[in-house]
Amino acid sequence: MFKVNDNYLKLPGSYLFSTIAKKVSAYQAEHPDQSIIRLGIGDVTQPLAPAIIEALHSAVDEMADAATFKGYAPDLGYEFLRNAIAEHDYHELGCEIAADEIFVSDGAKCDSGNIQEIFSTDNKIAVCDPVYPVYIDTNVMAGRTGTYDPDREVWSDVIYMPCTEANGFVPELPKETPDLIYLCFPNNPTGSAITKAQLQEWVDYANRVGAVIIYDAAYEAYISEEGIPHTIFECEGARTCAIELRSFSKKAGFTGTRLGYTVIPKDLKSGDVTLHSLWARRHGTKYNGAPYIVQRAGEAVYSPEGKAQLEKQIAYYMKNAKVIKEGLAEAGYSVSGGVNAPYIWLKAPGRMTSWEFFDYLLERANVVGTPGSGFGPSGEGYFRLTAFGTYENTVAAIERIKAI
Amino acid sequence: MFKVNDNYLKLPGSYLFSTIAKKVSAYQAEHPDQSIIRLGIGDVTQPLAPAIIEALHSAVDEMADAATFKGYAPDLGYEFLRNAIAEHDYHELGCEIAADEIFVSDGAKCDSGNIQEIFSTDNKIAVCDPVYPVYIDTNVMAGRTGTYDPDREVWSDVIYMPCTEANGFVPELPKETPDLIYLCFPNNPTGSAITKAQLQEWVDYANRVGAVIIYDAAYEAYISEEGIPHTIFECEGARTCAIELRSFSKKAGFTGTRLGYTVIPKDLKSGDVTLHSLWARRHGTKYNGAPYIVQRAGEAVYSPEGKAQLEKQIAYYMKNAKVIKEGLAEAGYSVSGGVNAPYIWLKAPGRMTSWEFFDYLLERANVVGTPGSGFGPSGEGYFRLTAFGTYENTVAAIERIKAI
Repeated sequence: MFKVNDNYLKLPGSYLFSTIAKKVSAYQAEHPDQSIIRLGIGDVTQPLAPAIIEALHSAVDEMADAATFKGYAPDLGYEFLRNAIAEHDYHELGCEIAADEIFVSDGAKCDSGNIQEIFSTDNKIAVCDPVYPVYIDTNVMAGRTGTYDPDREVWSDVIYMPCTEANGFVPELPKETPDLIYLCFPNNPTGSAITKAQLQEWVDYANRVGAVIIYDAAYEAYISEEGIPHTIFECEGARTCAIELRSFSKKAGFTGTRLGYTVIPKDLKSGDVTLHSLWARRHGTKYNGAPYIVQRAGEAVYSPEGKAQLEKQIAYYMKNAKVIKEGLAEAGYSVSGGVNAPYIWLKAPGRMTSWEFFDYLLERANVVGTPGSGFGPSGEGYFRLTAFGTYENTVAAIERIKAI
Repeated sequence: MFKVNDNYLKLPGSYLFSTIAKKVSAYQAEHPDQSIIRLGIGDVTQPLAPAIIEALHSAVDEMADAATFKGYAPDLGYEFLRNAIAEHDYHELGCEIAADEIFVSDGAKCDSGNIQEIFSTDNKIAVCDPVYPVYIDTNVMAGRTGTYDPDREVWSDVIYMPCTEANGFVPELPKETPDLIYLCFPNNPTGSAITKAQLQEWVDYANRVGAVIIYDAAYEAYISEEGIPHTIFECEGARTCAIELRSFSKKAGFTGTRLGYTVIPKDLKSGDVTLHSLWARRHGTKYNGAPYIVQRAGEAVYSPEGKAQLEKQIAYYMKNAKVIKEGLAEAGYSVSGGVNAPYIWLKAPGRMTSWEFFDYLLERANVVGTPGSGFGPSGEGYFRLTAFGTYENTVAAIERIKAI
């Protein structure tokens, strides 16, 4: 008689976005005349840039002709895309990453969920609190997290690193030594950034204790300030302790087009075994490459036209971020993020919980955001707004919030 | 200090296609004037059908306009595609599969590799021998297969079900009871088909012993004979014991476009837990949907124009299969497959091993195929040719083989 993977049964329900959706539709049903503005989910709204559209059409035409048709892609991604990534995302910053250390995939969510698989189930993970839930949930599924305490909403075998106003939402080195450290900067959900000096401390620490940093840099394109690293490989020694995850979703509006990549330097080893070889084996066995047409679209992201168009697209969203941040500050809110990230993290006023503030905002301003407590216990009392709406909606939402 | 998943280290090298590539390029280097014809790898060569190209262009245009732009897809796939699949692949055959029992993915390779994850690592798997290597390798990675015997090339905790000339390349019910049974029909690599009556025996057996059948029907579109089931859900009782994997790769030339789906009926349970809910959780946590434009391309596969064009495409490849099968039979080879599948499975002449025949064919006819021993011990002495080349190359290859 077959049995299921009972680690799956330990997962508490993932009710954050479904609870939001239910509350919103119940409210809308009761108030059919009111127009609700959604600044909750981190999905983009601007269309793909013209250079990307052109690359897609041209690649589709190639698929129509036997002479240029493309079948199975190379396991680890087409050379043209891996070369463009190595050149523009690493060499231009002076980082030594070779094209064959880049693994093209269908997105950072998949990679951040799958990467734990090449590690022993004995390894102990450390995560920021609040955190993107995929890091924890996929380790639960693998049986790496111990037992769940529903009252404190924490797992017994996970090291939580609180990110609070007190530490500027950048975690301190943990007291207990982890094997795997998940870091996401610029951060989802807090919108905070890490300085190069701070990240260097983490790299030095990981090399010292023999830990691997899984560095999620999905929001790198939103960095606007000097001194904020665009990649962990700007830090000395990162080649022996870091894996980097990157995404085209927020950089180029690919949430529905699906493209990302993972960098594993060949110097990252356990004894004689390179993590590069294990991930290559996983890719070759369980994955079959991103679509050719999408890889061509990814290449266009790095063309001069593509770069110029995407700079404008990101400026559009960051203008929204500014509207949100400055508007809320004017209205007396304690607010952070939104400078090097498309997320704004605000403190619910008074002693309101995250969900109380959610209801308050929905009912009084008809604006939807995301309760911070949905990202972990240290998110309680906080709230996330995203800059990915349209400019008009963003301005209207902030006017409404200021009016209450 | 972090540790790796040492199950990965147990995997013997996956040298089949890289050994082939090395031998071919060494031969080509020594004989630069000879033109080599490749009928080895199962990749398609015909371009995407016009209806699919049109759907792709139209979806790309939607991505260029904010009003029609698509961000994150629904986790389990767009309704338009799931409805088309349910209607055309199931309801038309009288099979009761609901649209919400269909999980759209980026291909059957990924799904066939990932599906084992929702089962306990204690479960015992049964596989055909010879077999598509992904089924075994992904179970090795999960630690489900025991120890490897390099001499016999088998794993201690895997039930191998020989598929030989004696049983028409359809396995018999195993003596030892498995928990998970991988079946692929029409079969890769042997090209054999299973009758509905034979498959019904497997369904009855699985229901009797409490096993799950993971049914890979990636080559379903190549079925030409009556009485061969297009889906396991044609069998009575399959809803309580079967998961089906399907692919657009060979049905519509999507090897480089990437689309597939998995069907998990809601009646398939372990106690109160549906496998449907576990796979939905996995999809929601570790996957982010197939690209919108590719899902629109998938929808076009089911349009009247798409269906008519793909019928011709498949007829083109099956004409190749006929050329190969009849040509080899005329030349005195013992040959099977090629009637309901794009693969032809032949016995190497005399006492030649698979690899000896590989060298013989490469050197004497300049034709490349795949040694059967690469798919498992019972494949020794056999050889796989595929129908996915161009017609001209296929005819030329068979003429050359007949001439030696």
